[in-house]
Amino acid sequence: MKKRIGVVLSGCGVFDGSEIHEAVCTLLAINRNGAEAVCMAPDIELSEVNHLTGQETGAKRNVLVESARIARGKITNIAEVKAGDLDALVFPGGFGAAKNLCNFAARGAGAAIQPDVARLMKEMAAAKKPIGAICIAPALVAATLGKEYAPKLTIGNDSGTAAAINQTGSSHVDCPVTELVIDRDNKIVSTPAYMLANNISEAAEGIEKAVKAVIELI
Amino acid sequence: MKKRIGVVLSGCGVFDGSEIHEAVCTLLAINRNGAEAVCMAPDIELSEVNHLTGQETGAKRNVLVESARIARGKITNIAEVKAGDLDALVFPGGFGAAKNLCNFAARGAGAAIQPDVARLMKEMAAAKKPIGAICIAPALVAATLGKEYAPKLTIGNDSGTAAAINQTGSSHVDCPVTELVIDRDNKIVSTPAYMLANNISEAAEGIEKAVKAVIELI
Repeated sequence: MKKRIGVVLSGCGVFDGSEIHEAVCTLLAINRNGAEAVCMAPDIELSEVNHLTGQETGAKRNVLVESARIARGKITNIAEVKAGDLDALVFPGGFGAAKNLCNFAARGAGAAIQPDVARLMKEMAAAKKPIGAICIAPALVAATLGKEYAPKLTIGNDSGTAAAINQTGSSHVDCPVTELVIDRDNKIVSTPAYMLANNISEAAEGIEKAVKAVIELI
Repeated sequence: MKKRIGVVLSGCGVFDGSEIHEAVCTLLAINRNGAEAVCMAPDIELSEVNHLTGQETGAKRNVLVESARIARGKITNIAEVKAGDLDALVFPGGFGAAKNLCNFAARGAGAAIQPDVARLMKEMAAAKKPIGAICIAPALVAATLGKEYAPKLTIGNDSGTAAAINQTGSSHVDCPVTELVIDRDNKIVSTPAYMLANNISEAAEGIEKAVKAVIELI
């Protein structure tokens, strides 16, 4: 049986959803490590951003429907997924991780977490199953698990975001773009990716290492 | 100076635009080979497909604006790009290559080509600059260049599509998913990717080889 790695998507595009390069590099690394990606997303709205202008349009799209673009249609509503279905869980970055899966982008350490995302992440942590978080997604993990587990994780070296992460009870660790932070006690792996990457190869290298580390922790 | 590789996108999502995995693997391979990707797309409409259901919604989106999601906002209207700006040109696949950049999906060998796509591709061919085509995109190249150049290329082994390609004056060559076809006379490189791939690693392997071959032909 292949190891089943949940991949939680938050839309399709860095400014209002999942960062596409990070999500695809995650899927590729999972497959190349002999595991199976199980894509999922919440069935909620997102506020559309025109990626040519960088401006919000005022229109809404659906996170699950847009995430299906990255998953080539093979995607599950996260409300239907339990920790027992998975061996590990990975969160690619993009603003969607901080705006759709929670409201960290607006609220920082006091962020509210989308209920099914919070439930599944807490189930995984309680079952001691590994969690990977890429780019800004470690802030989501920190806001969800900080109080109970005090994880060590990284979003690179942005001092403001690091401070907000530390306010959740988690500990931020500075980390270069092609490296990763592994919290072995909590089985939480993180890498900065496009929080620091100047190009797709830098992001991919850290993600490849992080996905491999997640799978080795299973 | 880094070699400049144009990447022509056709939207964001396999069913109504660029196949996202193919586009990202293309960008990654370009960067890993020390070249620079120059993303571009036409400023035209596409017919939106809900990627969760696979059904057309009846709504329209803009090809350039949606393609900007894959390019993280760094993208140019193809109308502004000339062959002199580039060292090579690559077309990822997805239905957008056959529905938005031309109407091969509906019309086969007699397809009409989006005017700026046709212009730029013909400029590249006339300048003997390499062209790469992935998945279904070789059908677009065949319909554009078939009469004048009679290129050899592959979309894998689908006999109906191969017959339509042969009707353009091009020659289809069967090819396994992780391999590629190189027409050295015309400097045209093609690989089947998701026309045949069972998983992202198979698609990525062929794309990595194809992008490397394109850059070596410069």
